[in-house]
Amino acid sequence: MRTTITTTTKTMPATAITSSVLRRSLRAYQVYGANTGVGKTVMSTILCGALHRAFPHERVWYLKPVSTGPQEDADDGHLARFSPRTSSKTLVQYGQPVSPHIAARTAAPLTDSAIREQIQRHVTECAEDGQGTLLLETAGGVHSPTPSGSSQADLYRPLRLPVLLVGDHRLGGISSSISAFESLHIRGYDLNTVLVFEDAQYENHLYLRDYFAERDIPLLSLPPPPPQSSTTESDRERMAEYYEEMSARPCVLDTVTALSTSHTLRLARLDTMAPQAHKHIWYPFTQHSPMTPASIMTIDSAHGDFFQTYCPSSSSEIKSSSPPPPENTLQSTLDGSASWWTQGLGHANPTLSLAAAHAAGRYGHVMFASAIHEPALSLAELLLKHLGNQRMQRVFYSDNGSTGVEVGVKMALTAASERYGYGDRMKEVGVLGLKGSYHGDTIGAMDCSEPSTYNKRVHWYQGRGHWFDYPQVKMKDGTWVVEPPEGQEEEFGPVARFTSLDEVFDVEARDSSAAAATYKKHILSILDRLVREEGKSFGALIMEPVMLGAGGMLLVDPLFQRTLISTIRASHSLFSPTPSPEDANTWIGLPVVFDEVFTGLNRLGPFSPSTLLGAQPDISVHAKLLTGGLVPLAATVASEAIYDAFLGSEKSDALLHGHSYTAHAVGCKVAETSVKELLKLQESGAWDGFQEPWNEARGVVDSRKDSKVAGRVWSMWSPTFLSTVSHRAEVESVVALGSVLAIKLRDENPGYESNSAIGLQSALSCVDGGFGIHSRVLGNVFYVMTGQTTEVDVVRRVEQKVLEAL
Amino acid sequence: MRTTITTTTKTMPATAITSSVLRRSLRAYQVYGANTGVGKTVMSTILCGALHRAFPHERVWYLKPVSTGPQEDADDGHLARFSPRTSSKTLVQYGQPVSPHIAARTAAPLTDSAIREQIQRHVTECAEDGQGTLLLETAGGVHSPTPSGSSQADLYRPLRLPVLLVGDHRLGGISSSISAFESLHIRGYDLNTVLVFEDAQYENHLYLRDYFAERDIPLLSLPPPPPQSSTTESDRERMAEYYEEMSARPCVLDTVTALSTSHTLRLARLDTMAPQAHKHIWYPFTQHSPMTPASIMTIDSAHGDFFQTYCPSSSSEIKSSSPPPPENTLQSTLDGSASWWTQGLGHANPTLSLAAAHAAGRYGHVMFASAIHEPALSLAELLLKHLGNQRMQRVFYSDNGSTGVEVGVKMALTAASERYGYGDRMKEVGVLGLKGSYHGDTIGAMDCSEPSTYNKRVHWYQGRGHWFDYPQVKMKDGTWVVEPPEGQEEEFGPVARFTSLDEVFDVEARDSSAAAATYKKHILSILDRLVREEGKSFGALIMEPVMLGAGGMLLVDPLFQRTLISTIRASHSLFSPTPSPEDANTWIGLPVVFDEVFTGLNRLGPFSPSTLLGAQPDISVHAKLLTGGLVPLAATVASEAIYDAFLGSEKSDALLHGHSYTAHAVGCKVAETSVKELLKLQESGAWDGFQEPWNEARGVVDSRKDSKVAGRVWSMWSPTFLSTVSHRAEVESVVALGSVLAIKLRDENPGYESNSAIGLQSALSCVDGGFGIHSRVLGNVFYVMTGQTTEVDVVRRVEQKVLEAL
Repeated sequence: MRTTITTTTKTMPATAITSSVLRRSLRAYQVYGANTGVGKTVMSTILCGALHRAFPHERVWYLKPVSTGPQEDADDGHLARFSPRTSSKTLVQYGQPVSPHIAARTAAPLTDSAIREQIQRHVTECAEDGQGTLLLETAGGVHSPTPSGSSQADLYRPLRLPVLLVGDHRLGGISSSISAFESLHIRGYDLNTVLVFEDAQYENHLYLRDYFAERDIPLLSLPPPPPQSSTTESDRERMAEYYEEMSARPCVLDTVTALSTSHTLRLARLDTMAPQAHKHIWYPFTQHSPMTPASIMTIDSAHGDFFQTYCPSSSSEIKSSSPPPPENTLQSTLDGSASWWTQGLGHANPTLSLAAAHAAGRYGHVMFASAIHEPALSLAELLLKHLGNQRMQRVFYSDNGSTGVEVGVKMALTAASERYGYGDRMKEVGVLGLKGSYHGDTIGAMDCSEPSTYNKRVHWYQGRGHWFDYPQVKMKDGTWVVEPPEGQEEEFGPVARFTSLDEVFDVEARDSSAAAATYKKHILSILDRLVREEGKSFGALIMEPVMLGAGGMLLVDPLFQRTLISTIRASHSLFSPTPSPEDANTWIGLPVVFDEVFTGLNRLGPFSPSTLLGAQPDISVHAKLLTGGLVPLAATVASEAIYDAFLGSEKSDALLHGHSYTAHAVGCKVAETSVKELLKLQESGAWDGFQEPWNEARGVVDSRKDSKVAGRVWSMWSPTFLSTVSHRAEVESVVALGSVLAIKLRDENPGYESNSAIGLQSALSCVDGGFGIHSRVLGNVFYVMTGQTTEVDVVRRVEQKVLEAL
Repeated sequence: MRTTITTTTKTMPATAITSSVLRRSLRAYQVYGANTGVGKTVMSTILCGALHRAFPHERVWYLKPVSTGPQEDADDGHLARFSPRTSSKTLVQYGQPVSPHIAARTAAPLTDSAIREQIQRHVTECAEDGQGTLLLETAGGVHSPTPSGSSQADLYRPLRLPVLLVGDHRLGGISSSISAFESLHIRGYDLNTVLVFEDAQYENHLYLRDYFAERDIPLLSLPPPPPQSSTTESDRERMAEYYEEMSARPCVLDTVTALSTSHTLRLARLDTMAPQAHKHIWYPFTQHSPMTPASIMTIDSAHGDFFQTYCPSSSSEIKSSSPPPPENTLQSTLDGSASWWTQGLGHANPTLSLAAAHAAGRYGHVMFASAIHEPALSLAELLLKHLGNQRMQRVFYSDNGSTGVEVGVKMALTAASERYGYGDRMKEVGVLGLKGSYHGDTIGAMDCSEPSTYNKRVHWYQGRGHWFDYPQVKMKDGTWVVEPPEGQEEEFGPVARFTSLDEVFDVEARDSSAAAATYKKHILSILDRLVREEGKSFGALIMEPVMLGAGGMLLVDPLFQRTLISTIRASHSLFSPTPSPEDANTWIGLPVVFDEVFTGLNRLGPFSPSTLLGAQPDISVHAKLLTGGLVPLAATVASEAIYDAFLGSEKSDALLHGHSYTAHAVGCKVAETSVKELLKLQESGAWDGFQEPWNEARGVVDSRKDSKVAGRVWSMWSPTFLSTVSHRAEVESVVALGSVLAIKLRDENPGYESNSAIGLQSALSCVDGGFGIHSRVLGNVFYVMTGQTTEVDVVRRVEQKVLEAL
């Protein structure tokens, strides 16, 4: 029965969180058309009739979210007439028979999320009403515009309903049917069944049947309905007869039965995924002993900042003969670790998917040694231009941060060995770094960090170098402080209090402070001891600039990193008796390697974290956000002086490193697209809403203007939130920069093996206000990391949740 | 002027090689339609008129490759009437006004490559005729079927002409225009301009203008033509007036000028790519000293087995004021290294592109620790099922072969240390392996190989273990021999001659041979010396099964590898005084790690190379072909006994290894799809044509039946070709297995730094018979590797080229 027509609708908050729809009691499908006029409503009516026959004790619902044209011709009216047992409804009806984006111009604005919200509400009402099937019919073709002007395929994607595609039986319909399928497929929709009318001349249904059979998608073809030229009683009777006949056809009944079966199978598969994974997957960085299938999160899909995670029924519910529970089995779970710090532009971003597919379709992967292709070159040019480091001239590609670091270290050690003639001592050359650093899991990358829990059980690990202590920046009880390492006040000076984080990062001004002199003296004494007294050889300074990630989101005093770099660069004479080279673009002292894998590309705010230090590396390593959270790729960028060290007459003089998929076109194209998107966000003021409270806190009125002042720091997390958190009794300190928030909890035994953040982690995982939060912890450090496209409102809601959970 | 109508056409050889079209003198475009009836021919006629105006001294050509419907209505006739200065032509005209795949049923068969061949020939004729523009108009929509039943978008893809897309101005046309664009985009086409008629009611042109502007694609909209209901003279006059007016419009003239500009810019970019790469790219495994821009291959695109490589004009030609040369600037170059051994299913395979895009659209990348998603689980299940190794239970994902090996070695060393209580000696535990092995470029993977050219300059490399000598299988002067390492006849026995490669690989029969006893004795004596006398500790046997790739495509005597495994497994008492475990699925002696990165997944014929040895590993590493040559991904597969060694109460007991993009959904989905495609090829007899000559050589008649006998070896390279090559004076020996061919050239100073294969490599790079061959060499070893979908005819032509070049 037709229920309501809503012509205007209340605008919902922009960030209403949409969960995908999957309920045990309710089988819901989205009916898309290959084009307008292909018979979506007729096919829907036939299916509704067949559903009533096949499942006489179940309900059938029909929903048209957006409809255009005179109300008396509306599709839900057609359903009400020819399938009266079906509960049919239209959410929004526009009078004009044009595309919704034109029709909507004269009506109240209607956002995409408001439409999704109304659908969700309707689905909930249906599910509470009983068991059955819901058909949700779209308008026009798959990409027909919505009232807001977006594409339908994008609007409905967060719901990710299984699709019934009505193919086009007319001349040209093979092409439009296949293209429509492809547009849905690349957005991550699952196409369940194709429905198409038969046409003896064009035979589209025969061609499409074979085409989709190859893709394991069944096709149902049916004779077309009688012509509906008028609304006479006899026309209607003929139509009713047609529906009567079609919905009783065995092939149609088989189709609706198959829909039910595939619904059951999908749920059954989701139920077995965690147990199967528990049996066959060996997880990274995971102690499996305490693991149970229930501790494995099944991710059905993801969109924007959210995973759609599966909530299994308890086994008793599944086995019982009572009707299946109506609750949604999928929940929106915030990707609170930004998928191990890779995610920036949202999951399932169609721009990135299309970029990946275009490169795949143009190249696949093509061998890179002595060859060039457009995505690899464009990406290299783009990085060199925007890193803003004039000495950088060369890009070496590899597959992930760890390999990128191995490449960077090989580069640095060779360059230093060449200049300083390390020759015989070459196996003993080490690196200088910071305590708590982490550069990856391959042996060469591990060797760049000091001994720790991460590597103590690794047979071939050997820390090669020296790692400095350093003061950390923290907010404690509402105040930004720089705190010396425990018990080392003498070396580093006492705790220093700052009026703002800006003041901490005003490193040029702090260069002349007493702290800078103390740091320099400390660093020089250690260097002197290592090189002169202990006779050690070093080939690189390698650091994560500004913030050490896996070490526990440690915010290093930027003045210390800056002073460390300048002191090493001023210490050429420590390594060599000859005068230092005078080329401004060459390295001096030691090659400086920035591992920007985590901190780079706007993760901490600026495009490059070197901006925050006012110091540039000789080699930098980029990965994670480089590909916007889609596929692995790393770029190690180097100066020409580093590169020159590998020129020689022998092949063995070269950097003999390379992976088969080096500079794979898909990764390079996705990275190029991601970097451009990040730059666009940076330039367009997309983060103004986040910068505002930071500007207010520092008393600046014109936020847009001031946000571009170099060295100004800000975070997606608000200063008042940080202050409130820092006052909580269980909180030792808090830091935030860019999209990163880290809360250090008090713990008698802190460190990587601490469990003190588990409570907070688990409290936040509960669904509340429409979503739960999935987070990772680093010992007693709890952190949340958003993407670069996360909306202000979502961040504020997460802040609220954190305050409640603490 | 209308020239010819061909109603039937000669079928060309199935493997005619299509080069992409890009000529300096001729600007060629493919006109696609968003649907049928959107006005492709009208738009083409307008453009032709405008081209004549804008470039009065140039030619304009119009080509309709396939047309259906009565000849008198044909599109080239329309052109001839309304743009008589344009040279118009149809290649194939079918009388019925239906899709070409239906119309073609009653005509002579017409393959896709025959159509491409005819187009190529026509393009060449045009180019030789003068400077100008060619419009190539398709039929129907982008995916409309061709005479063979394939999709137009796939048929024309190898030509990869820039596209002019005629959008759909009708109701529903926004959707069909965007979907058509997406179908072309994911196939690697570049869309140059969108053309669409204006409609005041639907305003598709306004929506589409904004949509494509965001993608930097210009849109030209024009008023629709007058109705053409009849063929009266007044109708024709109105039409002629319309064309006159349209083709003179400034916006239309701007469009054709922009086409010319973008053609010039594309060529200019191609000209600068190699110089730019020479300046900014740091290549893997490359000594840059002798490199010049001219030695860098610019790859414009790739399709199937072929790159499309750019042939730059000499700078004098470009600068001169004489007309541009008519030759095609792109050439088909066989990807003879299978893009560093990764390629199997053809470049730009739409099935893989769509799989990648679907996973991107469903998930992006989602964090994998303690989580599961469908592609990762399906791939794990698929591998465990088809590797046919019952002890394997666990899959660990990483990013490439090198990281996969590091993971495998960490697994093995820990398992061995646990059982044998290596405790204090843990830093000294090494591996056993084979000389000439290669496992990757990260330090841990390098440490698994003995010192060599590859690693001698790497600071942190230290070979950790012992590497065995072994006899090699080779064809010499037409005979398969097993040859002991030089000067070690006493240890390994004399050269053994075999009647066939089958006999060499009949390892079960050879187990009882004298050679097996000799091998066993040799291995035992070395093991005894290493462990008992020298007190060394070992944690793994790691090998590339059957063939050592980077070491020079060395075909190891399978009996030796088999005996090495069985001898180590029988030597439990050497490592421990306690009795060996009795579980059939546990490891005994040492964990055996197969590095199947190169040799696995049908590269050498069978799905797993362990089939050829009749011996199974405890850990195996898979990459390269795993993702069919598209994106990086590795899977390290392990037995439960290995996994159990990492269970414990502490997090630090776990395998603390993981990469951010671990089990990225795109890679897993592409891998799942690739593995399924390989299995389909294997099961469908797709390689019968290659197996036939091998079966004939061994006297077997029913090739299909016999090809599935386990242990039977075959290659895509024919036995007679191998025999012929092996008799050549400059050839030391030759080997082939599966898709791999390796020719070892005589050289006084053989090895990785030898240059003796460079001559052969360079001779083959010349274009001859429609394509050149790009190959990589390993010192004095020249090799060619095809994909798993390369056609027999292509391989035979390569054989011919090799024989001519030798």
